[in-house]
Amino acid sequence: MIHLPRGTQDLLPGTTEKWQHVEAKFIELCRNFNYQEIRTPIFEHTELFQRGVGDTTDIVQKEMYTFQDRGDRTLTLRPEGTASVVRSFVQNKLFGQANQPQKLFYIGPMFRYERPQQGRWRQFVQFGIEALGSADPAIDAEVISLAMEIYKQLGLRSLKLVINTLGDQTSRENHRNALVEHFEPHKEELCSDCQVRLAQNPLRVLDCKKDREHPAMKTAPSILSYLTEEADAYFTKVKAFLDIMDISYHVDPNLVRGLDYYNHTAFEIMSDAEGFGAITTLAGGGRYNGLVEELGGPETPGIGFALSVERLLMALEAENIELPIDDALDSYVIAMGEKAELKTAELVNQLRQAGIQVDKDYQGKKFKAQFKAADRLKAKFVLILGENELAENKIEIKNMQTGEQVSISLPDIVSYLTEQIKKGGQ
Amino acid sequence: MIHLPRGTQDLLPGTTEKWQHVEAKFIELCRNFNYQEIRTPIFEHTELFQRGVGDTTDIVQKEMYTFQDRGDRTLTLRPEGTASVVRSFVQNKLFGQANQPQKLFYIGPMFRYERPQQGRWRQFVQFGIEALGSADPAIDAEVISLAMEIYKQLGLRSLKLVINTLGDQTSRENHRNALVEHFEPHKEELCSDCQVRLAQNPLRVLDCKKDREHPAMKTAPSILSYLTEEADAYFTKVKAFLDIMDISYHVDPNLVRGLDYYNHTAFEIMSDAEGFGAITTLAGGGRYNGLVEELGGPETPGIGFALSVERLLMALEAENIELPIDDALDSYVIAMGEKAELKTAELVNQLRQAGIQVDKDYQGKKFKAQFKAADRLKAKFVLILGENELAENKIEIKNMQTGEQVSISLPDIVSYLTEQIKKGGQ
Repeated sequence: MIHLPRGTQDLLPGTTEKWQHVEAKFIELCRNFNYQEIRTPIFEHTELFQRGVGDTTDIVQKEMYTFQDRGDRTLTLRPEGTASVVRSFVQNKLFGQANQPQKLFYIGPMFRYERPQQGRWRQFVQFGIEALGSADPAIDAEVISLAMEIYKQLGLRSLKLVINTLGDQTSRENHRNALVEHFEPHKEELCSDCQVRLAQNPLRVLDCKKDREHPAMKTAPSILSYLTEEADAYFTKVKAFLDIMDISYHVDPNLVRGLDYYNHTAFEIMSDAEGFGAITTLAGGGRYNGLVEELGGPETPGIGFALSVERLLMALEAENIELPIDDALDSYVIAMGEKAELKTAELVNQLRQAGIQVDKDYQGKKFKAQFKAADRLKAKFVLILGENELAENKIEIKNMQTGEQVSISLPDIVSYLTEQIKKGGQ
Repeated sequence: MIHLPRGTQDLLPGTTEKWQHVEAKFIELCRNFNYQEIRTPIFEHTELFQRGVGDTTDIVQKEMYTFQDRGDRTLTLRPEGTASVVRSFVQNKLFGQANQPQKLFYIGPMFRYERPQQGRWRQFVQFGIEALGSADPAIDAEVISLAMEIYKQLGLRSLKLVINTLGDQTSRENHRNALVEHFEPHKEELCSDCQVRLAQNPLRVLDCKKDREHPAMKTAPSILSYLTEEADAYFTKVKAFLDIMDISYHVDPNLVRGLDYYNHTAFEIMSDAEGFGAITTLAGGGRYNGLVEELGGPETPGIGFALSVERLLMALEAENIELPIDDALDSYVIAMGEKAELKTAELVNQLRQAGIQVDKDYQGKKFKAQFKAADRLKAKFVLILGENELAENKIEIKNMQTGEQVSISLPDIVSYLTEQIKKGGQ
């Protein structure tokens, strides 16, 4: 028997309905916030992620699915969504569109070769948005509010929003120098990755899982002490917008996002539900004002976030939230006798064309077994077509909730059932 | 600048809404037909496709994206959906579920390294269904009717349904022998691929694009002359079901599906719209009663079909069919003066939480430019919040269709606008 590849999963009926529900919620919220969908390919030229995610990141150095195609191109399964969206923004010249900022959303599978564990898959689904073309702190707050609204509308309560600023270029350079100065005396005590990070991107040291407990981490200089007046004013405005939107947050000066091009606002949303497990980050995002230029476009500010759908569903489970999914079948047609066979196919076809959900037996089951199948599928109405009914051009219909059974003329069945189902839905 | 990989495409706003529309239609129809969604990984162990699609097929021999992962597994981006669904059916023991047949649908990207041309992409999206566990000809007709219903409900008229039977094992073997006998004298005149096919799978010779005009093709023995009584009776029943469902079709005894495990019913749906181009096949499917066993499961009959979403959209275009997509914005808030800034963010947030679609300016535009932006976004209502309105705790609201403008108290705006939008939708 052939199994699915390690770190991937099958989503089966019973689960996929939950995915459909949360995806419909994303699309509905994006519509309300006026974000439009963009779809980019599953794989891109590897260079895109080297430049767009950052050569020094773990993602690029250790986790990418990279391969040669039959034409010797070096391609990579996308490990995240932002680089592809920005590539598409540049290639398709969306910066030249009349509507600015371009407010885009995406949803789809991403791929990282990591050690599989609870909440971490090699193929996982991200939902994300990107707003390109605005440097207004109000849009930072909008992006955060959309992220929070998703969780809120799905019913999650145990949420923690953490924000930070990474400042502008000058703030970052000053902070960077301070970090190097601070960690340099401890260099030999840090992990080998951090020793490299200290030279390449010292901010990343703050994000290291191995060195988390090193005493120098606690006394590391905070970005907040190195902000320029402008960067500080920007952050103050973002917080004021969040306040007026009634979105509560914690400021964590150690919050660092894993990608190279982030600046100003950074944020993460965590679940603090009991039993959620070790990986509590549900979503992360931030501002990346240098990325569009880096990928060959004109100077364009940008901000976005991405969330993991898998972890969203885990968080719903941790909080015992049942999504409102109707798993009952509208109707089921039982046929008795060979003569009714063709008539049943015709009837089922008519009902479906009228928008009524209906199923029938396809295994030559006897009457009783058909009734059982209807029951198992939670059919609201069971229609019975036997040889007597056929001779009289009638059909029996049983309301499974009330037990009521009536006989209806066959030509009237579509309108009768449409009416009954509409009633039942109210 | 980095471009997307050859043979792939970006789907941008303006186009993605069409994709959303047809996908919602798929999901709605699958619900009516009681098919449930299954999602399998983007890549699988290569062996799955070698066995499940067939070692001798062009797909497996020439077109797969195959690569080694960092753990030296040989993986392949899925070139089609059926093998993965059947693998999942076996691995997750869906054959043991109470509800049989298992009626499943999928939608997602597939990958084939082919020469890109109109209607043929290296990454393309397939929608498909699989019914596993029934050998009732009524379900063959159901599968065909679902495929036809999608096109019909989206408005396509120029459709051609072609059906055939490949018979059961005995029919196939007899036909196979007849084919070998028929083509053997012409072997040297056939293309090199067909010379191999003649030994491995002579049925495929009938499907060859290069040898299409060879005189021996026209006189090749038809499967219809080699059907066993049972296989013939099965095909007759499928046709009777299609007749009663009022689905017209042509029988083409040369219709051969490209995969190895097909038997009995095979079908294709073509567009004969003018200007559709050379590739006219929209969807194809058929019965594959040996596949579940081949992939390690118990003997289980199966049937399904897949359609290309790209070609569906091309067919809609060829027939000049506009999908009913509402691209107008419910409302747009214009803020005047710095003081109104925070209030606007609060208001926009409240409206969105109430389910109202709303946008605002994020580029520091002046009043006139904001009004222009609202117009460009086809806003149905424009809300104006200036310093006077703010002082009086009011807001101006202009109905862009009627030109009517009223002043509303700020605390009443959510309910007022909800009401107005509901009216506008009727």
